[in-house]
Amino acid sequence: MPVLTPQQDDFPRWYQDVLTKAKLAENGPARGTMVIRPNGYAIWERMQAEVDVRIKAAGAQNAYFPLLIPMNFFEREAEHVEGFSPELAVVTHGGGKELTEPLAIRPTSEAVIGEYMAKWIDSYRDLPLLLNQWANVVRWELRPRIFLRTTESDARRYARRILHDVYLDFMRSVLAMPVIVGRKTVNERFAGAENTMTCEGIMRDGKALQMATSHELGQRFSRAFDISYSSAEGATELCWTTSWGASTRMLGGLIMCHGDDFGLVLPPALAPVQVVVVVVKDTDGAVTRAASVLVEELEVRGVRVRLDDNVAQGFGWRATDWDLQGVPIRVELGPRDLVEKAALLYRRDTREKDKVGVDRVVDEAQRLTGRIQMDMLEAATARRDARISDCTTVDQARDVAQTGVARLPWELVGTSGEQDLAASGLTVRCLQLSDGLLPETGDDAGVLAYVARAY
Amino acid sequence: MPVLTPQQDDFPRWYQDVLTKAKLAENGPARGTMVIRPNGYAIWERMQAEVDVRIKAAGAQNAYFPLLIPMNFFEREAEHVEGFSPELAVVTHGGGKELTEPLAIRPTSEAVIGEYMAKWIDSYRDLPLLLNQWANVVRWELRPRIFLRTTESDARRYARRILHDVYLDFMRSVLAMPVIVGRKTVNERFAGAENTMTCEGIMRDGKALQMATSHELGQRFSRAFDISYSSAEGATELCWTTSWGASTRMLGGLIMCHGDDFGLVLPPALAPVQVVVVVVKDTDGAVTRAASVLVEELEVRGVRVRLDDNVAQGFGWRATDWDLQGVPIRVELGPRDLVEKAALLYRRDTREKDKVGVDRVVDEAQRLTGRIQMDMLEAATARRDARISDCTTVDQARDVAQTGVARLPWELVGTSGEQDLAASGLTVRCLQLSDGLLPETGDDAGVLAYVARAY
Repeated sequence: MPVLTPQQDDFPRWYQDVLTKAKLAENGPARGTMVIRPNGYAIWERMQAEVDVRIKAAGAQNAYFPLLIPMNFFEREAEHVEGFSPELAVVTHGGGKELTEPLAIRPTSEAVIGEYMAKWIDSYRDLPLLLNQWANVVRWELRPRIFLRTTESDARRYARRILHDVYLDFMRSVLAMPVIVGRKTVNERFAGAENTMTCEGIMRDGKALQMATSHELGQRFSRAFDISYSSAEGATELCWTTSWGASTRMLGGLIMCHGDDFGLVLPPALAPVQVVVVVVKDTDGAVTRAASVLVEELEVRGVRVRLDDNVAQGFGWRATDWDLQGVPIRVELGPRDLVEKAALLYRRDTREKDKVGVDRVVDEAQRLTGRIQMDMLEAATARRDARISDCTTVDQARDVAQTGVARLPWELVGTSGEQDLAASGLTVRCLQLSDGLLPETGDDAGVLAYVARAY
Repeated sequence: MPVLTPQQDDFPRWYQDVLTKAKLAENGPARGTMVIRPNGYAIWERMQAEVDVRIKAAGAQNAYFPLLIPMNFFEREAEHVEGFSPELAVVTHGGGKELTEPLAIRPTSEAVIGEYMAKWIDSYRDLPLLLNQWANVVRWELRPRIFLRTTESDARRYARRILHDVYLDFMRSVLAMPVIVGRKTVNERFAGAENTMTCEGIMRDGKALQMATSHELGQRFSRAFDISYSSAEGATELCWTTSWGASTRMLGGLIMCHGDDFGLVLPPALAPVQVVVVVVKDTDGAVTRAASVLVEELEVRGVRVRLDDNVAQGFGWRATDWDLQGVPIRVELGPRDLVEKAALLYRRDTREKDKVGVDRVVDEAQRLTGRIQMDMLEAATARRDARISDCTTVDQARDVAQTGVARLPWELVGTSGEQDLAASGLTVRCLQLSDGLLPETGDDAGVLAYVARAY
């Protein structure tokens, strides 16, 4: 009996099974909240560390802004309040008393950050002000946030730099995920943005998942919060701001992009444990000793490795569990292997096994970490491309998008086509030029629309 | 004119000045909330990293639990609800509608973690379950959290291990802070705990600040949340749980323990920037090039170093600012130094300057990082000890504690003396044996009480 519901039978149930059986996460006590268990959190910590290093390399500094925000902050930017007010959680009582002004739990932090940037910026010497925040927002998404630039072209360049150098680079080189990068339609923009750019991942069931976004806010928030500076010439100017974010949704995307019927499949560059050395059986401690030597040698080389010497539990049960956890490489060592001076090397992505001389195990395992990373990106790219079909009419796109991603000229869709598609539960995920680049406006000639179901 | 209000004149105002002038933190828009600015957050990130590594070494795994908790969770443990209900922030509306059951924003996480531990623990094989959480709680303290052990002695040992191996070790070897370790009186215990142990820091104005606590929860929470397991013999047993926490209060403690009239003084083991190489003046770029070479050499040695080549701003202004920021070591290099093949080496803690040959600067700066760390701990220990006076009556203790810390036999104070002291704004910070060890109970013979004002 399989441990998980097969993906083919019921994809959402497979996903739920993986979360439960691999002990990644579960629902919190209040509706819509989530508990991230240690196995899931270890992956998130690795994601956060890899994204954080890229954010700092892009010049932003971390800071922290409050969770509770006066309601009137939201009301200053008209589209922002319209977009977020239906999602607000409101605190009306504190310390046993009713508050004179209710407070909102942040659904996002542009408003409160705008307020403080306005205070901190005085002259052009204070610019650019580049801030990032790791914080929980109402729906338990942990999302990095925001910044600020002087001129329009600086701001636009920075929003693109974050998209490419932080998110896209992280997703390709760490998550081994080949996302579709594009511009959102007016309808799908962040509330209050003048342009939203996105990285869309394609899951194994053909649905899209928005993995990260980067927004040009123009001067809307600086007008609403009076974020201004005195220029070198002494004039008072409004700042051009941008904001961007990714969240623990990326964990869901990772699971659904790479996972298979045996559980999670982690790319080695991300995996908290890259190699597990498993003692299959042991009678006199000799196998455990040999396995420990391999662990030490791998550690010295900087490989994230763990020893499984829990022989009280059957090998089959443990192998199934390591499969569930998605550990990229397994080295299996038993009494017979010891005699033969060999070990089995197993790779989780292809589930291939290979017998290797014990003196070559460490080299081979290390080599495999790089190999698997490349192969996973290649395999995911092939799956993504197989899901995308070029279409020539909205009707055809509607059919195709039932199971995959339809690509067609945006001029054939337009705002009215977008509404038609929405009636069938489909959205335009993003707009892209035929060479894969970002369109400067939604109306550029030759713009293509990607249409799909989405999480 | 001094940049800061002198400590002697008005200590609280000095503190506020440091927060503002060094751009560490400021008040948030809602009462009681806080914004941590990049300069403050960089220090917090270093604190968190150093504590996190110690928590993991003590065997705990990180996880994440929700911010919003059903009100009824608090009501299950009688003392816990009594202690925390006056401090709750309550969410009554979500998504534009009134909620059927109001939700509390976590003031602490024992309740919600208890609920999940009960689900995750089945048999003795699942124990010990050691979890940690980094999370914001209502008062914007970021605090790691909690535990669980099988037997009473295991639990007690673990609560002490966290106190010593995590907190005390971190405070001594990273923060250079000589805290007083002791047991809280019944009156000062964490709501719902059977024993609370504490690390109390002594600030430069003689007041105490609770830096971290570790609690034995006995079986109270396991009874309230039904956290039980089947033993090896098949019996159902209640678990013994513990919890512990430290928060961004530690940042306040650090500032007030080491800071002086020139600003923050950071211990090198903690400092985000350990050495700043300052170009005093430059006309042809030669000084900047020489300074850059020093920066590179220090970087290669693993020193956290920064170059200040902002010669457009006057040297005096910049020196004042680096003093404010508390950077432990400053290397000053100007055109004349270049001729003399020398540089000035300045240490922030003693404000001493030393002329050093350019070829010895890197060695000397690196040596100083260790030296300053030791000297700061020694100086802070001397200041702490000078503040402590042994007393023989409660009246005497009351006088002494106006400006320092009174130490006297606990049997002279007792619960009634504690109430008397409270009327003068004084608290028993902790109980300790005369050899500095933790008393097993509050009533052990020879127990000493530390009495002080506190933040």
